[in-house]
Amino acid sequence: MIDMEKQGNIIVISGSSGVGKSTICRDLVKRLENAYLSVSVSTRTPGPGEVDGRDYYFVSKEEFQKQIEADNFFEYAEVFNNFYGTPKDKVIQAVNAGSTVILEIDIQGARQVKKLVPGAKMIFVLPPKQTELLKRLNGRGRDEKNVMEKRLAQVSNEIAAAWQYYEHMVINEDLNQAIEEIVAIIESKTGEQK
Amino acid sequence: MIDMEKQGNIIVISGSSGVGKSTICRDLVKRLENAYLSVSVSTRTPGPGEVDGRDYYFVSKEEFQKQIEADNFFEYAEVFNNFYGTPKDKVIQAVNAGSTVILEIDIQGARQVKKLVPGAKMIFVLPPKQTELLKRLNGRGRDEKNVMEKRLAQVSNEIAAAWQYYEHMVINEDLNQAIEEIVAIIESKTGEQK
Repeated sequence: MIDMEKQGNIIVISGSSGVGKSTICRDLVKRLENAYLSVSVSTRTPGPGEVDGRDYYFVSKEEFQKQIEADNFFEYAEVFNNFYGTPKDKVIQAVNAGSTVILEIDIQGARQVKKLVPGAKMIFVLPPKQTELLKRLNGRGRDEKNVMEKRLAQVSNEIAAAWQYYEHMVINEDLNQAIEEIVAIIESKTGEQK
Repeated sequence: MIDMEKQGNIIVISGSSGVGKSTICRDLVKRLENAYLSVSVSTRTPGPGEVDGRDYYFVSKEEFQKQIEADNFFEYAEVFNNFYGTPKDKVIQAVNAGSTVILEIDIQGARQVKKLVPGAKMIFVLPPKQTELLKRLNGRGRDEKNVMEKRLAQVSNEIAAAWQYYEHMVINEDLNQAIEEIVAIIESKTGEQK
């Protein structure tokens, strides 16, 4: 279904919530030649300013279920009681036509893609480290410390999971630099000697 | 002591033990134009094949202590009852002469460098993920499972620490690709728009 030598053109981008994945993906499409950003199908309610067909294809849960049964999804996952899926035909068409296909999907979906397409490039985007915040909180109120500790523990768990399933981790400390790193990852050929 | 606009030419490379840092650093020096790989001073016994002045400057603990007192070190740290330090004068000379200076040092030393040189680029190298190994161990003996779980826990802790102190994490899944990512990190300019 996807040519072996084109598998590396499938780029999976996942990351912590609020880390700037969408901004990164939109920017990537501008920087790369011939890139295609996959638009997911979702059962959730459109957020303010979100446009059907640009941000997501918004569908009902019934419609989503029908598409599962019709085997329309490359991957799909349930996140916080809503479904998200990647339209299979569009991804296959774009990859086989030679495009670099970018999938902004969660870790569950990412694992499905990796099973189907072992050559896909898996990138996990991490939030900036919080050394400054930690310093400021040092010696402050117990509540703020607890919030920080929870956040640290949460990100630490995410990172440990990401290390098991992704080949690349990029910290979005500086947006421009994070995007440059991702472009370098996409453009490098695994295993080839320069 | 180090010109502000040259701070980004100091590259700190740390990582899990046995992850291939030395191989990466030696290869980096070949790939980069005008790079200088710092040779650390160490009190440990030379390993087989290690050459004084190439792998380390091997000194006694007394000599190391004298060099600390003479303020000869850019950073130094004690690791498993031995001392390791970076000669200060050589690093400053090389950076101010326009070289890219690579420091292969541990997390303690890295934090000292970051305090002295906030513009230094901090890179942490992680071992490859062990999905395949985990799969093979699935349902096997309890001992092997325990070893894997310990290793996972250890790397997870390292990654969480690395996230707090480093701006970049590179997984050494494929050596050539890891080096390409590091070159991209070194060559990118933080905050500059393309």
